[in-house]
Amino acid sequence: MDVKKVFLSEDEMPRQWYNILADIKMNPPLGPDGNPVQPDQLAPVFPMNLIEQEVSSERWIDIPEDVLRVLRIWRPAPLIRAFELEKALDTPARIYYKYEGVSPPGSHKPNTAVPQAYYNKVFGIKHLTTETGAGQWGSALSFACSQYGLECKVFMVRVSFDQKPYRKSMMTAWGGKCVASPSTETKAGRDVLERNPDTPGSLGIAISEAVEAAVSDQSGQTRYSLGSVLNHVLLHQTIIGLEAKKQLEKIGEYPDIVIGCAGGGSNFAGIAYPFVYDKINGKELEIYPVEPAACPTLTCAPFAYDHGDMAGYTPLLPMHSLGHTFVPAPIHAGGLRYHGKAPSVSQLVAEGIIEPKAVKQLAAFEAGVLCAKTEGTIPAPETNHALACVVDEARKAKEEGKEKVILFNWSGHGLIDLGSYDKYFAGELHNFDFDEEDREKCCKLLEDYPKPQLIKNR
Amino acid sequence: MDVKKVFLSEDEMPRQWYNILADIKMNPPLGPDGNPVQPDQLAPVFPMNLIEQEVSSERWIDIPEDVLRVLRIWRPAPLIRAFELEKALDTPARIYYKYEGVSPPGSHKPNTAVPQAYYNKVFGIKHLTTETGAGQWGSALSFACSQYGLECKVFMVRVSFDQKPYRKSMMTAWGGKCVASPSTETKAGRDVLERNPDTPGSLGIAISEAVEAAVSDQSGQTRYSLGSVLNHVLLHQTIIGLEAKKQLEKIGEYPDIVIGCAGGGSNFAGIAYPFVYDKINGKELEIYPVEPAACPTLTCAPFAYDHGDMAGYTPLLPMHSLGHTFVPAPIHAGGLRYHGKAPSVSQLVAEGIIEPKAVKQLAAFEAGVLCAKTEGTIPAPETNHALACVVDEARKAKEEGKEKVILFNWSGHGLIDLGSYDKYFAGELHNFDFDEEDREKCCKLLEDYPKPQLIKNR
Repeated sequence: MDVKKVFLSEDEMPRQWYNILADIKMNPPLGPDGNPVQPDQLAPVFPMNLIEQEVSSERWIDIPEDVLRVLRIWRPAPLIRAFELEKALDTPARIYYKYEGVSPPGSHKPNTAVPQAYYNKVFGIKHLTTETGAGQWGSALSFACSQYGLECKVFMVRVSFDQKPYRKSMMTAWGGKCVASPSTETKAGRDVLERNPDTPGSLGIAISEAVEAAVSDQSGQTRYSLGSVLNHVLLHQTIIGLEAKKQLEKIGEYPDIVIGCAGGGSNFAGIAYPFVYDKINGKELEIYPVEPAACPTLTCAPFAYDHGDMAGYTPLLPMHSLGHTFVPAPIHAGGLRYHGKAPSVSQLVAEGIIEPKAVKQLAAFEAGVLCAKTEGTIPAPETNHALACVVDEARKAKEEGKEKVILFNWSGHGLIDLGSYDKYFAGELHNFDFDEEDREKCCKLLEDYPKPQLIKNR
Repeated sequence: MDVKKVFLSEDEMPRQWYNILADIKMNPPLGPDGNPVQPDQLAPVFPMNLIEQEVSSERWIDIPEDVLRVLRIWRPAPLIRAFELEKALDTPARIYYKYEGVSPPGSHKPNTAVPQAYYNKVFGIKHLTTETGAGQWGSALSFACSQYGLECKVFMVRVSFDQKPYRKSMMTAWGGKCVASPSTETKAGRDVLERNPDTPGSLGIAISEAVEAAVSDQSGQTRYSLGSVLNHVLLHQTIIGLEAKKQLEKIGEYPDIVIGCAGGGSNFAGIAYPFVYDKINGKELEIYPVEPAACPTLTCAPFAYDHGDMAGYTPLLPMHSLGHTFVPAPIHAGGLRYHGKAPSVSQLVAEGIIEPKAVKQLAAFEAGVLCAKTEGTIPAPETNHALACVVDEARKAKEEGKEKVILFNWSGHGLIDLGSYDKYFAGELHNFDFDEEDREKCCKLLEDYPKPQLIKNR
């Protein structure tokens, strides 16, 4: 029998992260005064060691031993050949995936939660605050904080807080404190509740609450933590692609196509950036970030300067954005409902190094169920978007009669999101079309902001 | 850094199961006439190839290639050193666990669901029926059936069906059909509903429904499948202990103590029997099956002949039993709420080769939360019982100043059972004392049955 799973031993685990900022130039984030943000302006929000990482242009950054100690609870993650899916699709393509569902919270998120908790701990921080939508990020940070003895407070969007009680249970099991947002604990939350006591909440409000809770702690021992978008977050995720590269080398393979679903962009960057490095250096391959058709940031929105949050507290980031006031349709891939995309992902799209794809909700679940029945594992709704693209490419390979090698990231399992599968089987899920009115509104909103320069890195 | 996880490559996976019936003599199961049950009497319920395995006394039984193909979706499972737990307990013991939560349904159950589906398929069977309590077994069999193209129907105890909707979702995702029991689909179910329309159901009723649904299918293409207790089920689980042995050998270790939680006994047998073989052959080590103090089959009940189900449809099995009418207290480890124990486990206890332990519910959850915060993974409530025993033994090793090697089976993750953790944190869980009245009732019930002979295998 051909090998299904390729393992690395712990001593083969990557010892450094790959920093794409060594290889691409980008527009800088801008402060309220319109000038590039300086590191010390971020000091009330993040610890200085992470801010240094955020702006570093070193290509390789050492992973601290005490981070490796925790990552190895589940890493190196397996690389798995999707034999049964290939058979079901009768495709000549060879399909491989990294499986990130082996982490305790069940997704790729702890790859950055762990180093973020570590660097905060080293900097003398005692408490972290964050927001979470569907709950993957909040549970990952709670897990990471439990490993380093930090306190963790998570502001969870109220509608998810009510719909997904198990996410709160996970956070509690790891000692994290999870509160529904908007809450009465912050001014931002109280203001919203006063205006609209029945609000379902939003990621934008939750971010405002988490940032306020961090910066308003007079002891100076609290900081804020973000689960995607920023450079250092994407950096930490590159361990996925670096492992995958080693594992493929072991069996003499190299991908023709690399695929990852993309919300803020960290999961996609994690699998893809080590291969983007190769592409920048002349290698021929296709690299696809996959987003929901209902929230088509990379495929429909302009490359512009925009805020990361709804309230406009964050610096202006150079990114593809649907506008910071855009409220994505209620698709079940909560991790992909974000108006923007990481600046580095946006830059790579803007200059055509990577090619974004958009997938509709029903096609995503159809692919997810096919994979559950063939490969066995029930995928997270976010992963289903990558799977739909994989299925498309495998069918294309069949039509073209080509033995393509496809690599994708299976970002997590769907065991806490089984409710969305129930709705799919009951015929209660449907597709959401992206609204042309929304696009016009977005373009109008972004008109007044500075425009990023077109930078060519190839 | 010392290695945390010991992997085996796929070509190091065991190619044979270990059959303890080669090494211990047991009392035979008895039919309604009081005589030993003959294989052909079981033919309407199980396929003949599995019945042959049930009565085989070959020590090593080959694992078919097409079973290995499916098992390798998640096997070999990792052996993990519990460094962080050791540190938290400040123990000189070295603690290792096999982690079975890596399987798609999240427990050890598919180790036997997969070969059972395979042997039924090979025998020409098209449909399998089974019952499930908490849902681990029903989801494992649905997964296995999806891999071999069989239809699967699961009768799920109504109270669990209502309380754990995600279990039904998992079964549905794999194409299984899950109905609440008692149902109107069987005579057994209709009879119960007529007498008591509001019954919460029981495992005993669900077994009767599943067996009736199998044997009443006139096409002859339906059989019944059981998730524990029987010899062939325990046989299939020995891959856990066989892998663990290889993994420990790789790092030059051998256990002083082997621990597994025990409901019907298959999880315990899976980790323990390859080491029981060593013990029978003169090796010195302790082997502990751990059961709930609220359902103390091995620690309080007589070794007797009793039925496996409440209605008394099954043959009389020689086992430790609380009596087939015993209804265990509503502890949250649903997989451990069974009145009997596998005959081979019972035989080993009866002659003192293994030593059972009982653990109270709160001690189990306390150990589970400690492990979630140290080792990261949130354990299944069943696993928590093994963990409480591990914690006790690690503390004892500290008191005695001994560098003991402890091996246990982490039978599954608790992500579908997080509701029980919520109750624990809310202070809503409590201990259940075993009722002396129940014991008297049990002894009285079993008085009229044949008595097993005392057999000595050492």
